[in-house]
Amino acid sequence: MIYLDNAATSWPKPEKVYQKMDQFFRKYGANPGRAGHKMAAYAGREIFEVREKLAEFFGAKDSSEIIFTSNATHSLNLGIRGVVEKGDHVITSCLEHNSVIRPLKELERNGIIELSIIGLTESGDLDFDSLKKAIKENTKLIVMTHGSNVTGHIFDIGKIAKLAKEKGVLVMIDAAQTAGILPINLQELPIDMMAFPGHKSLYGPPGTGGLYIRKGIKINPIFAGGTGSKSEELYQPEVWPDKFESGTLNSVGIVGLGAGLDFIKKEGLEQIWEHEYYLTQKFMEGLLSIDKVKVYGPELGKIRTPVVSFNIGEESSSEVGYILDQVFDIAVRSGLHCSPLAHQTIGTFEQGTVRVSFGYFNNIKDVEETLKAIEEIAKEV
Amino acid sequence: MIYLDNAATSWPKPEKVYQKMDQFFRKYGANPGRAGHKMAAYAGREIFEVREKLAEFFGAKDSSEIIFTSNATHSLNLGIRGVVEKGDHVITSCLEHNSVIRPLKELERNGIIELSIIGLTESGDLDFDSLKKAIKENTKLIVMTHGSNVTGHIFDIGKIAKLAKEKGVLVMIDAAQTAGILPINLQELPIDMMAFPGHKSLYGPPGTGGLYIRKGIKINPIFAGGTGSKSEELYQPEVWPDKFESGTLNSVGIVGLGAGLDFIKKEGLEQIWEHEYYLTQKFMEGLLSIDKVKVYGPELGKIRTPVVSFNIGEESSSEVGYILDQVFDIAVRSGLHCSPLAHQTIGTFEQGTVRVSFGYFNNIKDVEETLKAIEEIAKEV
Repeated sequence: MIYLDNAATSWPKPEKVYQKMDQFFRKYGANPGRAGHKMAAYAGREIFEVREKLAEFFGAKDSSEIIFTSNATHSLNLGIRGVVEKGDHVITSCLEHNSVIRPLKELERNGIIELSIIGLTESGDLDFDSLKKAIKENTKLIVMTHGSNVTGHIFDIGKIAKLAKEKGVLVMIDAAQTAGILPINLQELPIDMMAFPGHKSLYGPPGTGGLYIRKGIKINPIFAGGTGSKSEELYQPEVWPDKFESGTLNSVGIVGLGAGLDFIKKEGLEQIWEHEYYLTQKFMEGLLSIDKVKVYGPELGKIRTPVVSFNIGEESSSEVGYILDQVFDIAVRSGLHCSPLAHQTIGTFEQGTVRVSFGYFNNIKDVEETLKAIEEIAKEV
Repeated sequence: MIYLDNAATSWPKPEKVYQKMDQFFRKYGANPGRAGHKMAAYAGREIFEVREKLAEFFGAKDSSEIIFTSNATHSLNLGIRGVVEKGDHVITSCLEHNSVIRPLKELERNGIIELSIIGLTESGDLDFDSLKKAIKENTKLIVMTHGSNVTGHIFDIGKIAKLAKEKGVLVMIDAAQTAGILPINLQELPIDMMAFPGHKSLYGPPGTGGLYIRKGIKINPIFAGGTGSKSEELYQPEVWPDKFESGTLNSVGIVGLGAGLDFIKKEGLEQIWEHEYYLTQKFMEGLLSIDKVKVYGPELGKIRTPVVSFNIGEESSSEVGYILDQVFDIAVRSGLHCSPLAHQTIGTFEQGTVRVSFGYFNNIKDVEETLKAIEEIAKEV
């Protein structure tokens, strides 16, 4: 089987991730921070270490700015719901995932916020002028993806964050498709919040994710409950990260995420990037030479995430995905990928797209075999 | 090491839980429901099967009434925040965990709800008359624990639910300390919602939990986002369980929980109960014969969860817990166990308690060695 669905979740994981999780779970499966005994203390230390690793990896000033969540969707909901108040204006883009659009549309429908959705320029970049003009007196938050899960487009988050800072607006980045792929340094970028999944390009397991929140941001938690700290208080404690982390953490998953970060450090982010970019470009080159195939997103040679969306003629993307899976044993994704606005933007709301997303464990043979399969399908339709 | 902190999280887990998680993660680590390919479909089926097993285990009518969450705290927050509206009155008890009290106190502080907290009778049972009298016209919800994590008290949830139903009030049960310990049949009990952790007596890993919601209850989700269903919709889909499960599920954890349920089925809930109750009673017998030891909660011979709280004279509970850990290698929990109200109720808000909680993998030797250690400590203080 050739697995090309890494934008949904990376697979396989580095061997050390599997090993670390199983070993930790068997030996130190206690509830961290919930008791003083050695096993719980050990588990607590391991979690703290992963928090420190994440802070270092993203260049956060303090590891208490890293909040563990269950996935990037929960992180985005926490960031959005935690800061907006009735009457606020929020700005987002037309390439967002439903994990950004749905909480915003719901807040809009309930009369809590006003919402502006920024489009793209003809070249496919974010329409920065529109963004600039959209900022109003009551604009509280700009929330945008770093990289599109449909087209592979990368937004210039430095430029967006700089503008937001000038205008006194909070900015949150959805790094679901870029954390572990592109270098991100939160000390150099004036980003206030950043949501990231653990199970994609950070090589952790499902059930992990996080939200970076810059110290000083006024933000309410979504959950209240046991934090293992200030047990005597009937109200949620104010100390970070506890304020945002009620209930038993996914300790087994978190140590797996830590092993994933170790893997990235060992291999080198640049090396990972180069490999995935190389495969993506080779794949695009091949795709463009196949008759009837239409490729979306940034042109060949341009910077992009290792995600390529395409279609074969007018053929339903689901049908093509099905054939790739059933006949050729190649796992891709087809349809709307939870991002209806992005498909409206690129004109594929009805057809969807076939999405191939490469990971570090793919190789050039995977690219060649997939191209061969697509060529065969294209001949038939 | 003797592990007696099973009320925080059960440890060890059945061997099959470790094995199933590792195998599933290695072979089928794809994102369930997010793509049509074989691996994702397999992962989706496995998750569906665990949902079915949970529905069967708790006697839910339909498995779509079982919502996966990250832990019982998230379940409780979803249940509470999902149903209350401004002006509602909520009733709870004085034995609740912070995962119930903190969300309620916060809603009270923000002027959303009125809150009544029901005390105990002199015999230590819930003051049912007070509960009855507390129900008002605007009472929306009664939320109560099934078993106390401090005292081992078990509330008569059948009686509470029957009263709630008569009065047209919703009732949610916190089964954190009873799911997998006491039999619960949701078709026989008129309970509207029930929160449960996966990682305690259901033998799953951390990062798992759930909320049972009876079909027909009007409840809003906390999160919105990608559900893998109705991708084209800019609003959260209404279909259950998707409505409440945004973002990538902890598939690896969930299949581990499934293996935990298989274990319970194989061993038999009654057999597990008998073993844990036997250890608990033997331990209490021993404790009561040690000079200076004070034991809290239901008397010897009475029904209780396998949780025993005690103190040695006026000695700080933390100090006793520390000695048990460091000198005797016995892992217990001391302090307030995230339940300050319960400690106010039993008069241990300052001292806390030492809490011993048994699991199915403990044996009579663990009980004897722990009693010996407590005896030695009691001699010294």
